[in-house]
Amino acid sequence: MNHDATPALDPKEFRAALGSFATGVTVITARAADGTAVGLTANSFNSVSIDPPMVLWSLSKRAYSLPVFTASEHWAVHVLAADQEPLSNRFARAGEDKFAGLDLEDNVASLPLLKGCAARFQCKTSFQYEGGDHIIFVGEVTSFERSDHPPLVFHAGRYALATQKDPSLPQARSARVAGGFSEDLLGYLLGRAFFQFHEGLRSKLNAHGLSDPQWWVIAALTAKDGVTAQAVDAAISYSLGCASEPILQSLLPTGWLAVEGVDEQGIAIYCLTTSGRDRSLHLLAAAKSIEVDMIARIGYADGALLKTLLHKFIHQTDPGLPDLWCNV
Amino acid sequence: MNHDATPALDPKEFRAALGSFATGVTVITARAADGTAVGLTANSFNSVSIDPPMVLWSLSKRAYSLPVFTASEHWAVHVLAADQEPLSNRFARAGEDKFAGLDLEDNVASLPLLKGCAARFQCKTSFQYEGGDHIIFVGEVTSFERSDHPPLVFHAGRYALATQKDPSLPQARSARVAGGFSEDLLGYLLGRAFFQFHEGLRSKLNAHGLSDPQWWVIAALTAKDGVTAQAVDAAISYSLGCASEPILQSLLPTGWLAVEGVDEQGIAIYCLTTSGRDRSLHLLAAAKSIEVDMIARIGYADGALLKTLLHKFIHQTDPGLPDLWCNV
Repeated sequence: MNHDATPALDPKEFRAALGSFATGVTVITARAADGTAVGLTANSFNSVSIDPPMVLWSLSKRAYSLPVFTASEHWAVHVLAADQEPLSNRFARAGEDKFAGLDLEDNVASLPLLKGCAARFQCKTSFQYEGGDHIIFVGEVTSFERSDHPPLVFHAGRYALATQKDPSLPQARSARVAGGFSEDLLGYLLGRAFFQFHEGLRSKLNAHGLSDPQWWVIAALTAKDGVTAQAVDAAISYSLGCASEPILQSLLPTGWLAVEGVDEQGIAIYCLTTSGRDRSLHLLAAAKSIEVDMIARIGYADGALLKTLLHKFIHQTDPGLPDLWCNV
Repeated sequence: MNHDATPALDPKEFRAALGSFATGVTVITARAADGTAVGLTANSFNSVSIDPPMVLWSLSKRAYSLPVFTASEHWAVHVLAADQEPLSNRFARAGEDKFAGLDLEDNVASLPLLKGCAARFQCKTSFQYEGGDHIIFVGEVTSFERSDHPPLVFHAGRYALATQKDPSLPQARSARVAGGFSEDLLGYLLGRAFFQFHEGLRSKLNAHGLSDPQWWVIAALTAKDGVTAQAVDAAISYSLGCASEPILQSLLPTGWLAVEGVDEQGIAIYCLTTSGRDRSLHLLAAAKSIEVDMIARIGYADGALLKTLLHKFIHQTDPGLPDLWCNV
């Protein structure tokens, strides 16, 4: 631990320590006496009481909207969903008309109610309490709604994504070890996940008479066409595990590829044929369709999180591969 | 949204809606006048004020420890780290001596202070406020510590893991599309991550004269020895993309494998030789060492999260593969 204990606490360090506590993100709204809608982003929300149903949140005494909230008997708390980061940013900024262009729900209390949230609480102020440079609002919940949207999370000053620990998973697997091998090895998990995905595509590859390495070479050429065997090697020999030249050659008689000329050193330049590119795009569409199906099975939120982490992993462990999809 | 708005709110539904708001998990401790340490798990913690530095949390009026907290001027809030789930469970249960066997820190105020947390706040009660069936404790922070441990998160009634959205990642990649191919395709991400991992092992495989498919067959036999080619096919043909028999045969002259007999149908049973098993265990240790290095690069918390999600993905998209590591 970094010992930051000081007689006079450093506000920046104090904020950082508070940030260690992860929270959801809420937008809290009310309506001024003149009908103007006000709203702000807050992560100081929390539950207080079940019976009576009560929640609380804190508002800075310097907040522009403080007079509205202290005067208004009613306010609404919107717990934001993972895809509502733009809404969080919009209501965190001062000045502009925060509600411009938003599709609000009408309701009896005339509170401005946002849509698409993870949960929404309509409240009536029970108490306003002194809290240093903030006022603590405690409200009784008069009605609420809930959805199954995954939550937006805030931690250490940044937005975060969360996945539930899943007790239904066969956790024992992680511990199962036989002869020095464990199913929890990262290399095994990555390989099994990849090949389970790839297996869905393989019947289609087989129908085209393609081996796995032939397909990987074709997919690379679909991204960047007109390249030498060396360029293909530089980009994907880590997955082929061998030189690409024989694979490129094997695709010439089948009509997938053609040699379109030579470079300055007289080295062959390979291109997809029109028919080859067309077939390849169909296979890529099939791969995308497999992805949609598989992500539906683990849920969209976990799918997005898995992809985020794979991006991070690839970025952090990149041995210096050229990006096929850049201008090399 | 499931509209659950009712005149009399259903407490179970209300709890579920409150659970949509993700939180960290804290353990809050104090010491009774007789010196007894008390503590409980709470997720109702939140920040209140920066100047003066103040935090709050709520305690049920029915809590066993309520008299201690209402009488005690001092209490400590421990924001738990991702690996402190057992501590959360320990302090969430009633009855037993919650502090038994715990290694506490000594400090001036004689508060029971737990170690290894994401953050820790020592507080002096400023206010005790009415909050329905709870009391809201607002305290001024007299000192605090912080570490970089990733947080334990609670959401929808379960523990969760969180990863920060990383703005330093080249996000444009996700959008980069060429010829129908995007680097955000799940199949590409899984394949690239797997082969970047595998590349680290390949020089060692090459030193042994092993191809990738030969290694995958050997690794499978390290987990379960004495099997027919059919059994190997059933378990790993999805990654080999071909029959295993020729690969098994190719490993006989090199001294990795031996045929130890035949089954009832007269089909050859393959076994690792002593030397083959020994070399295989060295290669598996090398793979584990690559894993340790790569997980250090994305951080332990994200590494654990990636593995959790890969387990989920494999489980949910399993085409019905036999577990090599079970008794098939």
